[in-house]
Amino acid sequence: MSPHPLWRRTLAEFLGAGMLVTVVVGSGIAAQRLSADVGLQLLENALATAMGLGVLIVLLASVSGAHFNPVVSLAIAVLEHRSPKRMPMRELAAYIPAQIAGGIGGAALANAMFDVPTTLSTTDRATPATFLAEVVATAGLVLVITGLIRAGQSIAVIATAVGCYIGAAYWFTSSTSFANPAVTIGRVFTDTFAGIAPASVLPFLIAQVVGAGIAVGAAVALFPHPRPLDGRS
Amino acid sequence: MSPHPLWRRTLAEFLGAGMLVTVVVGSGIAAQRLSADVGLQLLENALATAMGLGVLIVLLASVSGAHFNPVVSLAIAVLEHRSPKRMPMRELAAYIPAQIAGGIGGAALANAMFDVPTTLSTTDRATPATFLAEVVATAGLVLVITGLIRAGQSIAVIATAVGCYIGAAYWFTSSTSFANPAVTIGRVFTDTFAGIAPASVLPFLIAQVVGAGIAVGAAVALFPHPRPLDGRS
Amino acid sequence: MSPHPLWRRTLAEFLGAGMLVTVVVGSGIAAQRLSADVGLQLLENALATAMGLGVLIVLLASVSGAHFNPVVSLAIAVLEHRSPKRMPMRELAAYIPAQIAGGIGGAALANAMFDVPTTLSTTDRATPATFLAEVVATAGLVLVITGLIRAGQSIAVIATAVGCYIGAAYWFTSSTSFANPAVTIGRVFTDTFAGIAPASVLPFLIAQVVGAGIAVGAAVALFPHPRPLDGRS
Amino acid sequence: MSPHPLWRRTLAEFLGAGMLVTVVVGSGIAAQRLSADVGLQLLENALATAMGLGVLIVLLASVSGAHFNPVVSLAIAVLEHRSPKRMPMRELAAYIPAQIAGGIGGAALANAMFDVPTTLSTTDRATPATFLAEVVATAGLVLVITGLIRAGQSIAVIATAVGCYIGAAYWFTSSTSFANPAVTIGRVFTDTFAGIAPASVLPFLIAQVVGAGIAVGAAVALFPHPRPLDGRS
Repeated sequence: MSPHPLWRRTLAEFLGAGMLVTVVVGSGIAAQRLSADVGLQLLENALATAMGLGVLIVLLASVSGAHFNPVVSLAIAVLEHRSPKRMPMRELAAYIPAQIAGGIGGAALANAMFDVPTTLSTTDRATPATFLAEVVATAGLVLVITGLIRAGQSIAVIATAVGCYIGAAYWFTSSTSFANPAVTIGRVFTDTFAGIAPASVLPFLIAQVVGAGIAVGAAVALFPHPRPLDGRS
Repeated sequence: MSPHPLWRRTLAEFLGAGMLVTVVVGSGIAAQRLSADVGLQLLENALATAMGLGVLIVLLASVSGAHFNPVVSLAIAVLEHRSPKRMPMRELAAYIPAQIAGGIGGAALANAMFDVPTTLSTTDRATPATFLAEVVATAGLVLVITGLIRAGQSIAVIATAVGCYIGAAYWFTSSTSFANPAVTIGRVFTDTFAGIAPASVLPFLIAQVVGAGIAVGAAVALFPHPRPLDGRS
Repeated sequence: MSPHPLWRRTLAEFLGAGMLVTVVVGSGIAAQRLSADVGLQLLENALATAMGLGVLIVLLASVSGAHFNPVVSLAIAVLEHRSPKRMPMRELAAYIPAQIAGGIGGAALANAMFDVPTTLSTTDRATPATFLAEVVATAGLVLVITGLIRAGQSIAVIATAVGCYIGAAYWFTSSTSFANPAVTIGRVFTDTFAGIAPASVLPFLIAQVVGAGIAVGAAVALFPHPRPLDGRS
Repeated sequence: MSPHPLWRRTLAEFLGAGMLVTVVVGSGIAAQRLSADVGLQLLENALATAMGLGVLIVLLASVSGAHFNPVVSLAIAVLEHRSPKRMPMRELAAYIPAQIAGGIGGAALANAMFDVPTTLSTTDRATPATFLAEVVATAGLVLVITGLIRAGQSIAVIATAVGCYIGAAYWFTSSTSFANPAVTIGRVFTDTFAGIAPASVLPFLIAQVVGAGIAVGAAVALFPHPRPLDGRS
């Protein structure tokens, strides 16, 4: 489907996941420095992320599909494995490492812009409640993306919807909705507002894979007849 | 009009009403935990709800129409009873219980994500002023939905408008705009920020039905010549 | 251009201006009651107004043009007086009283929803700085509306732009951007956050007419070749 | 490409850059006066700027392209120098002084609306961290604009994306994302929340030119085959 060579698509995934983590981590640092109320910090972080993520998707969707997220790439690969526009294995094998490398680089860039050292986070986040929250958050995110693609919506509508979904999910989940293994790994490398301690990563990744699996089932149940996706705005 | 079987449409209504209540209740819990100022709590709750509701509508409109609300389903059934795309009685009889069950399940899911027990709310909300507010809030909501459908607007525009309407109505009404019997019943099952005590439910439901009735009259007066709705984004 | 009879268009202007003032006054009361920080109150008021105004425009534009504002109606009448779709004098003579009556009714409705008496405001707002601010705010608003109509933008884009303009203008002007004689007169009838004392009304109205005149000149200079407006979303 | 004479396009750039700085400076003054928490001040400033900038772009893009920013004009001139719709040198020579004059005038207008003297700012902002932040902020802004133009997106989508980008970049950069030499120079002329001391200007301008250069390279790498831009909304 894409007219672009794999290196360009992989570069777009690296930059997109990277800038997404820069937005998440950087806005978290600014919020923590400037505001006293923790809820207000989260509101600032959530609004910056919603706006930034929407922009990254609308910008890069025409290049790489704008996944920025290993479980989104996996879900799309599974859902489209019989379609003529299916995602080949070598694309998955390129996208996922690029997304993770981008996530780590993005955290380091945010740290540098705020003159903060790149160290491992000490924020433990794994509890049974946040495990459930990550399942729900990821199931919702992956269903929104794959459902809107299958419903034939435009890139601009999908970008807006995904940005809004994450903006809401910061609030309606107890985990603040990581919902993305590359972002989760990237956020290990900052000991600031948005950080996550290494010991919490594995439970979060497991929950995200479970959530994505649920979303694939829901997408098949709710959107059984995908419409062809065109490149219109 | 819908190419989907009734079970799929009913499932979409169950999931949509459910996730809507999860967003409302979950973001209310997070806001109450993280912020000290009650207005800031409501702002966080309102923005999360506006974003989440818009996403749910744009995602599920192509499946079920994305009502998520018994009085919206009723109003559409009344307004379209002579149209070839009219809503059959058995659809109403499936949608409304699914919306209510979704609302209760959504509250329980939000409680579980925040490790809060699912108990009945103790927040009394019924006063003459909030009764009037629910009439106004519901009349506005139902008029926005039915008017935009009759004006032939796209799903993306309607989803954005409904999200923004509710985001504003949290603020311009004294009831914070429940405007939805399924959401009202769901919100009984959480003793947190967004909860409503059982004794306040009946006045709210009566006000919502009255408001929906006013909206049907206004829709006929203002939009007498409905345009056919197509599936464009 | 409009397929609707004058009574329906006039009703839409009455309801639109009325609900706009209900949103402005009601959200102001809620903000003042729930938040301690005056800036936060204004943020809540501004976001509710931006969202509510955008919805009202997208809903009612196909009926009446969604002016809700005497100086917008005047500016459109002046700019289109040689066009085949010109606004007749009897339409102006119906719209303007309906907008003002709506504004007053909208304030009374907001007061009633919050159990506040409908009394005259005691908030003096007229200073040389707010006079200049109202000139700028109104010139900007009228230029945004008439410029986007002349550039052939869709109703959905214009509605979003006008909502965002007012959301910004609450902040970048010292008057919080009334920019609308019907809203200004309506806001006399509430002694709450959004109120304006009777003695401040005349300077505000004069500034608004001056601003609208500047906008008409700017619209002619910047958009000399209006494109035909169609009804697309 | 543009059907407009150079004077009209230059006027649009003057007004657009001017009103952009009026929004930035004016909302900063209001925020500082009304809110106590510095983060909340920045949130108010950022949301007003995001909404105002989006409106200015959608309004004026059909006239001048809505650059409002010397490095955006330069980047477009470089990227399109072989295209039939290339930007001629005399246009650059007219746009850039108009943008800077607009920026200064916009600051003076904001000061006047808030009854604040137009004096030089005393806020030092230049550090190695903010230098890096301005490089990142400007690279991102210029890539968003040129990438979306090359991807053939509509004016409404580009306007929304640029507004959201700046709204996010206030937060994810330590410099609060000036990203615009005309805005930077304009903001020298106010000793309020949004001001920047004269001694910090040169490092900011250098960083902005470096960032724009990076963006031009990235645009060529990611969007090698520009689609023709049409005037659709």
